[in-house]
Amino acid sequence: MQLTSFDQWNCSLAQTMNVIGERWTVLILRDAFFGVTRFEHFRKRLGIARNILATRLKQLADEGVLARAVGENGRPEYRLTDKGYELVPILIAMAHWGDKHKPNPKGARAIFVDRKTGKRIQRMAVRSAEGERLHPKEIGMKRGPGLSA
Amino acid sequence: MQLTSFDQWNCSLAQTMNVIGERWTVLILRDAFFGVTRFEHFRKRLGIARNILATRLKQLADEGVLARAVGENGRPEYRLTDKGYELVPILIAMAHWGDKHKPNPKGARAIFVDRKTGKRIQRMAVRSAEGERLHPKEIGMKRGPGLSA
Repeated sequence: MQLTSFDQWNCSLAQTMNVIGERWTVLILRDAFFGVTRFEHFRKRLGIARNILATRLKQLADEGVLARAVGENGRPEYRLTDKGYELVPILIAMAHWGDKHKPNPKGARAIFVDRKTGKRIQRMAVRSAEGERLHPKEIGMKRGPGLSA
Repeated sequence: MQLTSFDQWNCSLAQTMNVIGERWTVLILRDAFFGVTRFEHFRKRLGIARNILATRLKQLADEGVLARAVGENGRPEYRLTDKGYELVPILIAMAHWGDKHKPNPKGARAIFVDRKTGKRIQRMAVRSAEGERLHPKEIGMKRGPGLSA
């Protein structure tokens, strides 16, 4: 693949790491994806300190990845926005890799399925325009206008 | 999605974060994917301190994500292993998200293409067994043996 001199900041991957590059943040997003909405529920599932959880939820809301709303009982609720849902392919790709390469000795942990059919989803893969799986060595990179010198 | 009481450690996603959940690590993997192999080359591209780079490269080699070998001139070279290449779907999914949601005002940064055809790869997406794109709300989760109580 052709080398490019872009620095670590003008890099879409580094920008994403600025949003999700922290363990608690990723686990909060995981739980939001699983349907958790309430502060106390996140706290109990994660075993996370209140102040850290409050900070992370605020960061994710400020980023527009979670939306904060007041629930029926007056307590705040946090839900993934569309921008937040678009992080799910990253989370699933991470889960697939971890389940394969850092396995639990008893077998698969979470198995992701299509709710409609109950069948396992496909393993996350890079695909060509025609839909074929590509090995990373088959991927090239072109400089877009955001990388021009 | 059905809630599950697994803790943050018996979680494939958390396990992956243990390997790549650090900004420099992800940028080192990015550059390895782009063909960088030598310590000095990583260091110059990333502007990273020598001791931090040495530590991160060692961690990635210990993890089996990079393989360390002695190059022709006696200097060490670091290359992605198969296990490392399997991280690429995560990196590409991160790059796609960042390019869309944290854009450079001039436009796209890196554009990933199929080397054979020059066409853009597909946007990373979760797909059903039949190959259809699934919205995250259409994904369910089953407990595998690694999550049984």
